Amino acid sequence: MDTPRGAQDRPYRLARRDAVPTGTVVSVGDVRIGGAEVVVMAGPCAVETAEQTRAAARAVRAAGVRILRGGVFKPRTSPYSFQGLGPEGLEILSAAARAEGLAVVTEVLSPADAPLVARHADILQIGSRSMANTALLVAAAATGKPILLKRGMAATLEELLMAAEYILAAGNPGVILCERGIRTFERATRNTLDVTAVPALKALTHLPVIVDPSHATGDRRLVPPAALAAVAAGADGLLVEVHPRPEEALCDGAQALTPADFGQLLARARAVAQAVGRSLPSHAD
Amino acid sequence: MDTPRGAQDRPYRLARRDAVPTGTVVSVGDVRIGGAEVVVMAGPCAVETAEQTRAAARAVRAAGVRILRGGVFKPRTSPYSFQGLGPEGLEILSAAARAEGLAVVTEVLSPADAPLVARHADILQIGSRSMANTALLVAAAATGKPILLKRGMAATLEELLMAAEYILAAGNPGVILCERGIRTFERATRNTLDVTAVPALKALTHLPVIVDPSHATGDRRLVPPAALAAVAAGADGLLVEVHPRPEEALCDGAQALTPADFGQLLARARAVAQAVGRSLPSHAD
Amino acid sequence: MDTPRGAQDRPYRLARRDAVPTGTVVSVGDVRIGGAEVVVMAGPCAVETAEQTRAAARAVRAAGVRILRGGVFKPRTSPYSFQGLGPEGLEILSAAARAEGLAVVTEVLSPADAPLVARHADILQIGSRSMANTALLVAAAATGKPILLKRGMAATLEELLMAAEYILAAGNPGVILCERGIRTFERATRNTLDVTAVPALKALTHLPVIVDPSHATGDRRLVPPAALAAVAAGADGLLVEVHPRPEEALCDGAQALTPADFGQLLARARAVAQAVGRSLPSHAD
Amino acid sequence: MDTPRGAQDRPYRLARRDAVPTGTVVSVGDVRIGGAEVVVMAGPCAVETAEQTRAAARAVRAAGVRILRGGVFKPRTSPYSFQGLGPEGLEILSAAARAEGLAVVTEVLSPADAPLVARHADILQIGSRSMANTALLVAAAATGKPILLKRGMAATLEELLMAAEYILAAGNPGVILCERGIRTFERATRNTLDVTAVPALKALTHLPVIVDPSHATGDRRLVPPAALAAVAAGADGLLVEVHPRPEEALCDGAQALTPADFGQLLARARAVAQAVGRSLPSHAD
Repeated sequence: MDTPRGAQDRPYRLARRDAVPTGTVVSVGDVRIGGAEVVVMAGPCAVETAEQTRAAARAVRAAGVRILRGGVFKPRTSPYSFQGLGPEGLEILSAAARAEGLAVVTEVLSPADAPLVARHADILQIGSRSMANTALLVAAAATGKPILLKRGMAATLEELLMAAEYILAAGNPGVILCERGIRTFERATRNTLDVTAVPALKALTHLPVIVDPSHATGDRRLVPPAALAAVAAGADGLLVEVHPRPEEALCDGAQALTPADFGQLLARARAVAQAVGRSLPSHAD
Repeated sequence: MDTPRGAQDRPYRLARRDAVPTGTVVSVGDVRIGGAEVVVMAGPCAVETAEQTRAAARAVRAAGVRILRGGVFKPRTSPYSFQGLGPEGLEILSAAARAEGLAVVTEVLSPADAPLVARHADILQIGSRSMANTALLVAAAATGKPILLKRGMAATLEELLMAAEYILAAGNPGVILCERGIRTFERATRNTLDVTAVPALKALTHLPVIVDPSHATGDRRLVPPAALAAVAAGADGLLVEVHPRPEEALCDGAQALTPADFGQLLARARAVAQAVGRSLPSHAD
Repeated sequence: MDTPRGAQDRPYRLARRDAVPTGTVVSVGDVRIGGAEVVVMAGPCAVETAEQTRAAARAVRAAGVRILRGGVFKPRTSPYSFQGLGPEGLEILSAAARAEGLAVVTEVLSPADAPLVARHADILQIGSRSMANTALLVAAAATGKPILLKRGMAATLEELLMAAEYILAAGNPGVILCERGIRTFERATRNTLDVTAVPALKALTHLPVIVDPSHATGDRRLVPPAALAAVAAGADGLLVEVHPRPEEALCDGAQALTPADFGQLLARARAVAQAVGRSLPSHAD
Repeated sequence: MDTPRGAQDRPYRLARRDAVPTGTVVSVGDVRIGGAEVVVMAGPCAVETAEQTRAAARAVRAAGVRILRGGVFKPRTSPYSFQGLGPEGLEILSAAARAEGLAVVTEVLSPADAPLVARHADILQIGSRSMANTALLVAAAATGKPILLKRGMAATLEELLMAAEYILAAGNPGVILCERGIRTFERATRNTLDVTAVPALKALTHLPVIVDPSHATGDRRLVPPAALAAVAAGADGLLVEVHPRPEEALCDGAQALTPADFGQLLARARAVAQAVGRSLPSHAD
């Protein structure tokens, strides 16, 4: 099989498709990311209070989700914006997840925080602004936990795979790639979802690929069609912002779904998943 | 309903969503673009010979398609590349379509050619490089034929809608918008398919929106997932390059599907269309 | 000498550096574009009235300019914006220029208008939105007049040179390239001036290269530093918007310089030109 | 004075132009960055050996430079590329600088390394990939040393100023901004130098602004015109890669100037500086 443009001289090795011909499956408890099932991770942009986090955990659990997302170390453009609850937020997040039987994914921003985050989280997220932060990649890899690696907003697919290679080369095989929109000239959406990155990546690498339709669009009205497009294009999972009361969110409220809208989205995503030969479990499963 | 970013001060009027609240349906024979059905237009990048065009027409007809595409005036980057067969190609194209009972969509490049093209085609295509060619927009509008208007490779959604406004303001209501990928820093694909443009446009305008996955990706392996993503995101149609023998194509062979691959794509697209509450007729319909 | 990235496989021939090793000089009357002198073309965005055009012509003449710019066919995003005075504007523009002993450069938008524009103008401008309009390139080339070819807002240098190749291949050797800013994610300026395109183009081609700092920045406060940067980088000329009363301009007033500011800019540009071994004549010359 | 587009609602405070109306001057020894003099920082991409670093220090000193640059912690796309000499490199770099009476600027990649780097360097560089690394910004600020903050490759000017705000808000007033090219669709150059960012930034902020023509272009033939353009546009300084033997460089050799070419560039830059009312000292000063 020939390769997409620009891929002739790939400098990554461990991330190459043929390094794991059957494809990597990253397991978190009994959830398998990269298998036949489309895995949904959902929750609020930021952990704000114990109550809000518990409400979000209950809501996503009710919708059939088994991995809770929530930010406690927030990379903010302004030093005057809410920066996240930090270590206290980790306690809140992991307690809420345990109470609902959920796994946890949360972002780590600084190499020094990696061990602490790894004690509370099942998956460590490397955010878009940190994709090229090699000190952080290495520190996160060293925890041994699976890493959710988001594409930088101006990173090529090759650069994303080179960042993954840093983690793989550090001895951690559990990398999940995440397309979350790239920066272009268009301003009708917050970013431009590069949906074709999903099949392009799957031709280049054995790693699972998920999509974050919330940051890609920045607009809750566009999150459902973006999510359905991602599933149709072959994404192994979705990372979706859900907030019990988006209008009160301390961060990115405009892109958060209500629990009700999220439930409707999952029903439609399930139908699309089946249309392309995948499954997406419901709360009744 | 609130509006996407940047849309607060929209300078278009006739293209606005609320100008035709029920949505515009563009009819070509008994094909309705913008209705419940996802409409597929397919055929070769360029009309090369009568035989090749007939073979393509038969193949797309067999797959259930009712609109044949094919270029006779080709906008080429190089003056030394094949520029299309011109008027002779129009004869070949319309004869092949008639023989199979298909409608025809083909590009017009120069205002002076608009009347001639309108005599042979059912839909006039304004290509990506011509989106801002206002003299051409006005000349094409004046033929009274429906216009397939492709987004410029660096055009914002607002600029696309302003180009549509030129056609509408000239008295021609039959505009079909087409997302075909935008130019970004990424080179793994020929362009970056802005799949979220589909729902973003549908929130802004009453005009139908289709997607060209062939030019968006430039790679036949990526055309099917891109097409499925477009359908899942709510596209009203697809414009797909199909060539009886892609390896012999005079133009863009790398992105053309074989008839067999195209048939498989349509079967999968039909399933995705049904999953999102649309239909996509099969040849058995 | 090695070549810039991506230039290894250049598909243009007549535009190549080595096709005219000494460099092309385009002559308009006794003005030589591409020689030691930095040539300034200036005037209003649009021809509005005979009085405004005469005032602009006098002002730029007084500053030492010998080529008057002014638009009569305006490519506007909105069909409801002022579209230019058309043929009547050509009369006004050429009369104002004759009265001051100036040559004229003005844009042509439609192939059918090329002969008419050529009767009134000394240089035909192909605007940014028309760079890939091959029908227009060929029609403009056929007039035999020098062509000022602006880079498309998302065109690579290679695509710009391929557009030039269309003109050269049509038998017209008088092509002047113009960098006018490209579209990027940045919004602090209207476009992003790609100043390095000047030396990059001069390494690739024998054609003269000028810069339009007015459209590149869209902000009259940024026009002077952008213009000085262009001269320092080796530009063969500048294309500057000057309006007798910018606050009353029908088009792009925010980027037009007053005659006084323009005079100050030229004095500074002259000093920079001399610093890099070029000249820029003053009104006293 | 009105403001450039998009700047109406600036969320930064300490970085605003009017916070220090006379403009900030960052002093390093007796070198004043942000004053009348255009300050040049130069040296190799990477510290490779003591001998190479000493040769580079001698060469830039001979050309009149008073600040030596050199990387010891290298942010590399590939984990298999040379990652820099680390702490040992700091010793080599500071020893070479001391021997020639030069100040040192070098990049810090990880918050934990900031104190160590600050012991050897006079200016800490935050690289393009780290601009949004807030943990690093805060750690670097805490050293009290001046910070050279490079614009991210897809960062808007506002985002650059927000990153500066993190440093200022942490109590460190010594921030030097650096334009180093942005990522666009163009591939003829490594990045696109946004030269107009210099005057646009100077209208928005009181902080000094320098330009890195080496990373902006990635091509030593284009470094001189890019550098001259920067000076003409009002840059307060230049950051230039110079290597005693570029063809043997372990990193970015294609963009490094030889000492001889560098000397010629400075002579020309001096003339341009004088043309715009600035100075650039020579070794004889």
